[in-house]
Parts: sequence; structure tokens; C-alpha cells
Amino acid sequence: MRYIDAFNHFNPPRYHEQVLESPLGQKDLGKRVRGIPALWDLGRRLEVVDMFPDYTQVLSLGMPMLDRLWGPDKSPDMAKLANDGLAEVAAKHPDRFAGYTAVVPMNAPEAAQKEAERALKNGANGIQLGTNVNGKPIDGKEFWPLYETVAKSGRPILLHPARTRAMPDYEGEEKSKYEICSVLGWPYETGVTLSRFVFSKIMDTYPDLKIVSHHLGGVIPYLEGRVAHSFDQMGARTSDEDYEGLRKSLKKRPFDYFKDFYADTAIEGVRAPMICGIDFFGADRVLFASDAPFDKEKGPGYIRSTIAVLESIEMIPEVREKISFRNAQKLFGLK
Amino acid sequence: MRYIDAFNHFNPPRYHEQVLESPLGQKDLGKRVRGIPALWDLGRRLEVVDMFPDYTQVLSLGMPMLDRLWGPDKSPDMAKLANDGLAEVAAKHPDRFAGYTAVVPMNAPEAAQKEAERALKNGANGIQLGTNVNGKPIDGKEFWPLYETVAKSGRPILLHPARTRAMPDYEGEEKSKYEICSVLGWPYETGVTLSRFVFSKIMDTYPDLKIVSHHLGGVIPYLEGRVAHSFDQMGARTSDEDYEGLRKSLKKRPFDYFKDFYADTAIEGVRAPMICGIDFFGADRVLFASDAPFDKEKGPGYIRSTIAVLESIEMIPEVREKISFRNAQKLFGLK
Repeated sequence: MRYIDAFNHFNPPRYHEQVLESPLGQKDLGKRVRGIPALWDLGRRLEVVDMFPDYTQVLSLGMPMLDRLWGPDKSPDMAKLANDGLAEVAAKHPDRFAGYTAVVPMNAPEAAQKEAERALKNGANGIQLGTNVNGKPIDGKEFWPLYETVAKSGRPILLHPARTRAMPDYEGEEKSKYEICSVLGWPYETGVTLSRFVFSKIMDTYPDLKIVSHHLGGVIPYLEGRVAHSFDQMGARTSDEDYEGLRKSLKKRPFDYFKDFYADTAIEGVRAPMICGIDFFGADRVLFASDAPFDKEKGPGYIRSTIAVLESIEMIPEVREKISFRNAQKLFGLK
Repeated sequence: MRYIDAFNHFNPPRYHEQVLESPLGQKDLGKRVRGIPALWDLGRRLEVVDMFPDYTQVLSLGMPMLDRLWGPDKSPDMAKLANDGLAEVAAKHPDRFAGYTAVVPMNAPEAAQKEAERALKNGANGIQLGTNVNGKPIDGKEFWPLYETVAKSGRPILLHPARTRAMPDYEGEEKSKYEICSVLGWPYETGVTLSRFVFSKIMDTYPDLKIVSHHLGGVIPYLEGRVAHSFDQMGARTSDEDYEGLRKSLKKRPFDYFKDFYADTAIEGVRAPMICGIDFFGADRVLFASDAPFDKEKGPGYIRSTIAVLESIEMIPEVREKISFRNAQKLFGLK
């Protein structure tokens, strides 16, 4: 079977140097990324890709939240550097890299829109976005011109979660404990951000906007019952905001927006959740992806386990092809 | 098939009067509960139960977080009133109510331990706990005597989620928007609270403690890959706390604690997540439950849909019996 890996991570060389020189890069982040050569060393990366037959990647940056690394004075240039670097790597190895997505400087919303426009014209196959900007939401009106640009392009947004430790899990605490913010908080925030795309009416305003949610929709598919029946009753628990009025003013049932999002298979190679997620989004909206190279082997681990899990699930050939590569071809505009 | 409904909600009459007289009861909460007669009207409740053949309920209070309704001066008496009321209703209709769980005043930790002891001696079949106390976590040392008491009793904790709107979903915001706190935040907080039971070492200290997580484990089963592989790497992302040392000092792999929790089937009657959750917890640790009467029909809706979903899933008879009633018999000490 042919596989196009829709969501995995790579930092092109010149951009990677800048990451290491950034304040965060000189601390924990630098230590962490240095330990994963397939994230930034092209030679090692090609070795990993070549371990799998008929397998190519659409490259995305290691982490789309440039706002964590640089202020708005520098982030637009860094985005450009990252995007041009990814374009160069992809162009040089089209047999291994089917395409790439671009990042945008979300702490400089106007520049973000412009960089999206530039990168998409330059051949980027999508835009990778974090679920927050320095901890703040991304559904504010200042970002709507960006969403309009992406919607018009026909290319997707790849939504990458992150939740800061500064968001505590209980009242009266200063930060999230035990790394719960990243283990459970990231997929939670994916769910939150998708919800805010719905209820802020971004999806009503830009119905052509295609959003691919990393990690098979975060928490959404498992919470199908609540997303359906509890959002149907939105307003019943609140008296200081007119959520009932808001719900009734939407063009569709809340649940239907969630079913219209896309999702990838990057859930660290587990089977039962994979079946649950595919059931939720359906054969036309799930894209094969590995999240490489963030496995314990630092490269091939999740590619191998994700393919193995998909192959263990019974599907008709048409569905298998859609998930493995055809949906990616269509969404990213690939051949 | 015989069904014992392990987690559903009822307020006994005298306690219900007190709820309506409480400050919250005079506002939104009162309006909401008044609209659901099967939550507090015994006659209506019996009608709902009688709609289903060979079906009984283990009653739990409408909402275990008495701390939201009363201060520590009053909550111990209110817990007693609730528990004695549930005991009375269950004793009067043993053909409909197989048992009941007790609540404890968590904003008065010593009284909570004492009330648990009293109620369990008085025949309560478990203790229902909220995932927070007035927004604060429940893994603090002040609650450990309570957990010791429950662990020794052999009866389970029924863990009920709630997340306050005061916990915003992003930095810089004052509260959660669009009721995301209850739709997605509740199952998220179930996951958080289970994690804190593990990493605070409550589970290492009281290995006999049995925790039944409402809504089929919250978000845990769908995040199986992260709960396994990401918690295995706990410490890698943090330098200001020794999480690696903590992880290594645990008696088991983090993942194994999560597999040892129990869970109920109360997920609003959806099929794919049901299969995913049963796969995660296994046949010995899933209990049939409906969350009645919080469906749109205000009574029978979730009972009917949950039974229908379970019957649509292929299982060997032994597994079906365990989930439908045998696990409940064992855990609650029922005949």
C-alpha cells in the first residue's frame, strides 16, 4: 500500500540553528531536540523514510508555535526562513517528501496572513497552526483574514495542539502538575480549539475551511455522545451569556461541524481508539500520519506501529486507499 | 439480560428540599433540577425504572459536590441527610433499587472520613466523589484518611466529574466559554483526577482502592497511546520538578494504574467509543450505567440507548454478564 504521511515533523537546517539560538533553545527545548537527529538532520531523516516502501512525507515544522521562541519583531522572518527551508528540502527530494506545510507568525496576525499568502503561492500544501498563541486562543477576529486566505486556497490547516503548564488543571494552583498539560491537556485543547472554531462562527463564515486535527481529533471522537447531545443543550447551564441564542443562530447542528473536521491517525499506534476515530470522522476525512520522529526510537517507531495498526483493521480497499494516501492527495493537492 | 445500573442520579425528598433552599438552588440549579422530575420525584422515578425488564439501579445523589451548595458548617449534616434518604428509598424498594452510594462533605475532610465510615457501616454500597472540591484537587493529604477508610471497606469510589467555568481554557481569559467546561472539560477532569490519584501515590498507598470513573474513563481510553508512551517519558519535558525520579519511584508503570481503574458505560449511548472503552478497561472493570435521568427525555433515554448499544456489540455471554450486572454485584457487594 502506498502511504503519504500527512503530519510529521522536521526542522530545516538554517531554521534549526535559529531555534537552538533562541532563549528556549538554549534551555530545555534545545536539549530535547538535539536528542532527536531525525528532526533536523536531513541525512538521518532520509534513512528513516527509506525504511518504509512506497512511503512519502508531507513535512511540517517541529513545532508551529514560533510565538514561544520569538517576539513579533522576529517571528515573521523566522516563519519565512522555516517555510523556504521546508520548500527547499521537499523540492530536492520529491521521491521522499510529497510536499510541506508552512507556519505563520501568529503573534503578528497581519504578518501571519501575509506569510500564509506568500507560502501558499510558493507551493506550500497547507498551513500548520498551534491551538494557541502564547497560551491565548486563536479564534479572535484578528486571525480571520488568515482563515479567509487559507479557505480560499483550498489547502488545509493542520492543527497542532499544545497547552502551556501555566494553565493549571484546578483552581488555586499555579501550573499543571505531572506533565498532565502535555499528555492529556494537548488533545483536550484540540477539542477546545475545534469547539471555538465552531462557536465563534469561523466555520459558518468560511465553510470551505478545512481543518485537519492532529491526533485523530484530540478528545472529540470519544466524547461523541457529549459533543452531540450536550452541545445540543448549550445554554441550559448558563444564564449570564445567551448561548441558546448563539446555538440557534448557527447554520448547522453543533455536532455536524465536528463531523466535518478532518483528522489524522497520529495516536502512537493504538488500535481501539483508531477504530473509534475513523468511525467518527469517516473514510473521507481521516489521513494517515505518524507524528514522526517523536517516538521512543526517535524516528521510525510511530510510522511502523501506525501502519501495523491500520493493516490490522478490516476495511474495503477503497477506504484503505483513501486513508492511506488518496485523502492526502486531494487535500494537499498532490499527484 | 439482567441489568444493574451502577451510576445514575436521584435526590431523596428531604434532601432535595434543602437543595432548592440553598443559594444555588434558588438560581440556575433549582430551575434545572425542577425540570427533571425523575431526579427527585420517587413516583416518576419508579415509573422510569419499571419501563425496563430485569433492571435495577444503585442510586447515587444528583451531584456529589455538596461543597458547591453549602459551607463546611452545613455540608456534613446535608451529607447525612442525603445518605439516610437514599438508604431509606433503597430499603423501601429493593426490587427496583439494588443499593446506593453515599456522599461525603469534602469541604470538611475529617467529617468526610467520618461520614464515609458511618454510611458504609450503615450499608452504603460505595462512596460518590466529585473530581474537585470547590474547584480544588482531591489528592491532598487531608483526604487520605478518607481513602484509607474506603479502601478498607472493599466498596468502590464512584468518581463524578465536574469542572467549574472559573477554569478558563486559555490564558488571559476569565472563564471557560461556550459551556466547553462541562461538555469537554468534565471528561478531561476525570482524566486529570485519575492521573493525580496515580502520581500523588494514593494508589501505591492504598492498592485496594477501587475507583469507578464515570463516563467510561473520561478521556483516558481514547488517549491510550499518550497515557502509555508519553507518561513513560514523564520528566523529559520538565526541569523544575523531579518527575523522572517520581516516575521511577512508582511501584508500577503509569499505564498499568490506568488499566486498573474501573469505568462505567454512561456515554450517552454511542457505539464506537463504547467498544474503545471496553477494550481499554477490559471485561472485569466495566460496569453498566446510564447516567439517568439526564437525557433529553429526562428519564429513560440513556437507559434505553445504552442497553441498545451494548446489545449491538458482539460479546461472549460471560463478558456480557460481567458488564451488565456481575461486576456491579461484586464491587457493590450485592446479591
